[in-house]
Amino acid sequence: MSGKRGYFISFEGIDGSGKSTQARLLAEHLRGTGRDVVLTREPGGSPGAEDIRALVLEGATDRWSPETELLLFTAARRDHLERTIEPALAAGQVVITDRFADSTRLYQGLARADLRAVVDQLHELMIGREPDLTVLIDMDPGTGLARALGRGEGEERFESFGDAMQQKVRQGFLDLSREFAERFVTVDGNREIDAVAADIRDIVESWLP
Amino acid sequence: MSGKRGYFISFEGIDGSGKSTQARLLAEHLRGTGRDVVLTREPGGSPGAEDIRALVLEGATDRWSPETELLLFTAARRDHLERTIEPALAAGQVVITDRFADSTRLYQGLARADLRAVVDQLHELMIGREPDLTVLIDMDPGTGLARALGRGEGEERFESFGDAMQQKVRQGFLDLSREFAERFVTVDGNREIDAVAADIRDIVESWLP
Repeated sequence: MSGKRGYFISFEGIDGSGKSTQARLLAEHLRGTGRDVVLTREPGGSPGAEDIRALVLEGATDRWSPETELLLFTAARRDHLERTIEPALAAGQVVITDRFADSTRLYQGLARADLRAVVDQLHELMIGREPDLTVLIDMDPGTGLARALGRGEGEERFESFGDAMQQKVRQGFLDLSREFAERFVTVDGNREIDAVAADIRDIVESWLP
Repeated sequence: MSGKRGYFISFEGIDGSGKSTQARLLAEHLRGTGRDVVLTREPGGSPGAEDIRALVLEGATDRWSPETELLLFTAARRDHLERTIEPALAAGQVVITDRFADSTRLYQGLARADLRAVVDQLHELMIGREPDLTVLIDMDPGTGLARALGRGEGEERFESFGDAMQQKVRQGFLDLSREFAERFVTVDGNREIDAVAADIRDIVESWLP
């Protein structure tokens, strides 16, 4: 790998937290300052990974076991990493992804408590990379759920959880932010979009060289 | 798991070695003796695994990296194991599969020499089961290749290798038969189908209780 090296930023948060919107606003802002930005998402983010995404998210909820789903998400992530993320970083670009491995740690771990150790081992074996910076948009689960349902996102299995699950997911992300404190920043998402975006801009601007 | 426990037999060999034919003949023979037999194959063997198989085998040869392909094959194997193999074994049936994890050890290991260790770690983490008996049909690579090409199997990426590769694959399977000597039996495939089938019947009959 050359000396050129970009910056890898992920957004995480509960459904309806506004992470997709905030990822896009940050990308637009950084492009406005002259940076070369790749905005991407998981599951998906490369042609092969999008095909795997379709395979995972289609069909009945019990179509795949948590373990098979974990393997499919990891296959998609490997493809995303090889085909989209690594080439962009090697070219010195800023990569902003809506979700990365923390979502897998959280959702697969919640699907079955004993899976978290397997998730970690699989990540180490086949992915072996973390974002340089993870922006967690923390917000009230009730507000997030109402927003997500308002967008009709209940149709995606990933986001078809009830209120109690949203609370667990929120707590799970806060726990991850402590586990990986060296790369997580947590932003209060219970505010107007512009106020949240301004916070994120300040954080990222002061973090980037 | 109940006290009932079936028998798990895999067939391996180079393309054109006749393993699919021999797996079928063995299944028919055992059914004729009153045994309950599930005949299956990899990649595939369950509805989800067949969908993953289609995803892996379609498209350009470089559509997936060896690592992503390995993850997809492992996802398919996990589904095959959970949905087809384990339920049949729990019901006391004989499961005969055309290929299992040894094919992955071999083909992914040949794709990139340093991958074999990853294959093994991934297998231990996500599959953790070997066949009780593996029948390796060993044969002259030239004969096998001619047979495979005669069937038009060059169209499947799995089987689109040249003569030099067939020689490596044959040697690789022989190496695996020594590495896992406790479960491998090697049968000479350079003979008429009926003679090979008779050998396999004898071996399996004397091995089954």
